[in-house]
Amino acid sequence: MDYVLGIDIGGTNLVVGAVSRDGRRILGLHSELTGAVHGADHVIDRIVGMAHRTMAEAAESDPSATLVGAGIGSPGPLDTKKGVVILTPNLGWTNMPVRDRIGSRLNLPASLDNDANCAMAGEWWIGAAQGARHAVTFTLGTGIGGGIVVDGKLVHGASDVAGEVGHMTIETNGRRCGCGNDGCLEAYASGPAIARRTVEALEAGAESSLRDLGSDLHHITAQTVYTAAAAGDPLAVEVVNDTAKYLGVGVANLINILNPEVVVVCGGVTQAGESLFTPLRREVNRRAFRPAVQACRIVPGQLPGTAGVVGAAKMFLESHG
Amino acid sequence: MDYVLGIDIGGTNLVVGAVSRDGRRILGLHSELTGAVHGADHVIDRIVGMAHRTMAEAAESDPSATLVGAGIGSPGPLDTKKGVVILTPNLGWTNMPVRDRIGSRLNLPASLDNDANCAMAGEWWIGAAQGARHAVTFTLGTGIGGGIVVDGKLVHGASDVAGEVGHMTIETNGRRCGCGNDGCLEAYASGPAIARRTVEALEAGAESSLRDLGSDLHHITAQTVYTAAAAGDPLAVEVVNDTAKYLGVGVANLINILNPEVVVVCGGVTQAGESLFTPLRREVNRRAFRPAVQACRIVPGQLPGTAGVVGAAKMFLESHG
Repeated sequence: MDYVLGIDIGGTNLVVGAVSRDGRRILGLHSELTGAVHGADHVIDRIVGMAHRTMAEAAESDPSATLVGAGIGSPGPLDTKKGVVILTPNLGWTNMPVRDRIGSRLNLPASLDNDANCAMAGEWWIGAAQGARHAVTFTLGTGIGGGIVVDGKLVHGASDVAGEVGHMTIETNGRRCGCGNDGCLEAYASGPAIARRTVEALEAGAESSLRDLGSDLHHITAQTVYTAAAAGDPLAVEVVNDTAKYLGVGVANLINILNPEVVVVCGGVTQAGESLFTPLRREVNRRAFRPAVQACRIVPGQLPGTAGVVGAAKMFLESHG
Repeated sequence: MDYVLGIDIGGTNLVVGAVSRDGRRILGLHSELTGAVHGADHVIDRIVGMAHRTMAEAAESDPSATLVGAGIGSPGPLDTKKGVVILTPNLGWTNMPVRDRIGSRLNLPASLDNDANCAMAGEWWIGAAQGARHAVTFTLGTGIGGGIVVDGKLVHGASDVAGEVGHMTIETNGRRCGCGNDGCLEAYASGPAIARRTVEALEAGAESSLRDLGSDLHHITAQTVYTAAAAGDPLAVEVVNDTAKYLGVGVANLINILNPEVVVVCGGVTQAGESLFTPLRREVNRRAFRPAVQACRIVPGQLPGTAGVVGAAKMFLESHG
């Protein structure tokens, strides 16, 4: 059976796995911290090391496995044709030829696409958006990425930058975003933004079990907020609720603009489950046009942790036949 | 030569003309007030009357002219397949079978599409978006409509509602919009919203030559604001400038989401010329990703007053070959 190495480069984690040509099996799945602060060479070395382990394990699990290539997903903006990452604030990379650096080290043909497009491709291939002609994904992590399918095709736009739904302004004079703009969705609903809003509320005196975690509030992450919300902490519940409302503005906007059949929400925030999706759907109902809302399901991704790897492999197969 | 009747139903004006199959000639162009307050029957009668005059004049100008059908553009949401307008707050219509009511009265095959999609189709066919594979239009009038082209195809979405760019939230807790949502672009930058913001500033005591128009501030329209801005009135200039900024938020969002080659701004507001486009482009530059901004022209429509008629005729030709 043919396999494709899927490599998902995130601001926080690297994920690598060998995906079968039919998308049904993932062998040798590994996840490690990206360690972007140690520089690009370090990250590339780490990816190559993970890939070698994945390839060895895939050969062991399935002696007939043939690795035909590597699909790489990275934060953008990037140039898919040249295989170059133009700029990623979260990794600190500029004009980095990621595809060829990794492909040559692994001695495999390789492809590069936006990480959020890859997550879309994964969910569209074998996940929550399977079979949809019109779909949008929001992937919430260190940043907020997006993927768009229109009329059965993934949308890249005029210069490979399409899908940056996290950098949609939802407050004209709102919070400053890492991209330099004010009021981006990402500045409200990304993992770091969720942590920041929680810390601000604690600093302003809000009562919460999160205080018990210690005196340094800056150890609070989105993950600790989800855990506290699941345990019923009122501040954490309020933060998740507000996150759902901000995300609802972004989802409603995409529904009014593109009228998709399905909006898939991916990433750590989906761990909050119905405490996220119930207020999210309520907010979308209130904001978007009824015939567009009625046509659209809003669902969590079905491939938590692997959508990027599966989709990166799919994008390789699309580009290399 | 074959001609198609183009019928553009707007919240304020009706426009009818006979468009040649190659898009190069418009015969018998007429524009009248819609008079929506007099009810749907009145509006349909008026359209039929205008169409008969257009047909007579077309026959006179070009004795070889053959009318092959009628393309109708109307505010939505609507069902293009059934030819039914589902709901138009600005006209007060619900589940109105516009296509068949007009087609049967004129004894012509007819098509129905969203007015803003028609404007996009017109500008894409023979106007400012000609040849683009990825394009977006913003049509500013009584409301704000939009049209989207992705990969060389006009986007209708899952239920014909795509393109409602005017109902994108740009202020999460902002001004109430006619659609029931808060903070829509339309609540800031449509014609009535431009007039309303001007009146509010005058009521708050702002100095302006607009006071000389009389004591009833509610006679002020977007048109009087553009005229005063062109004459250098400071309040009117400020209102146009703010309009450009709000519109810039919406345009930047669409550029980050869809990465088009061209954004076309249509409608009365383009009369403000560079006093609109200069601050608009500045705002977009500040907000959107550089590689997306660099790939995109932001230009006024080239078919003022006729984009809807030309595009409605084009949509008929697309659907009836």
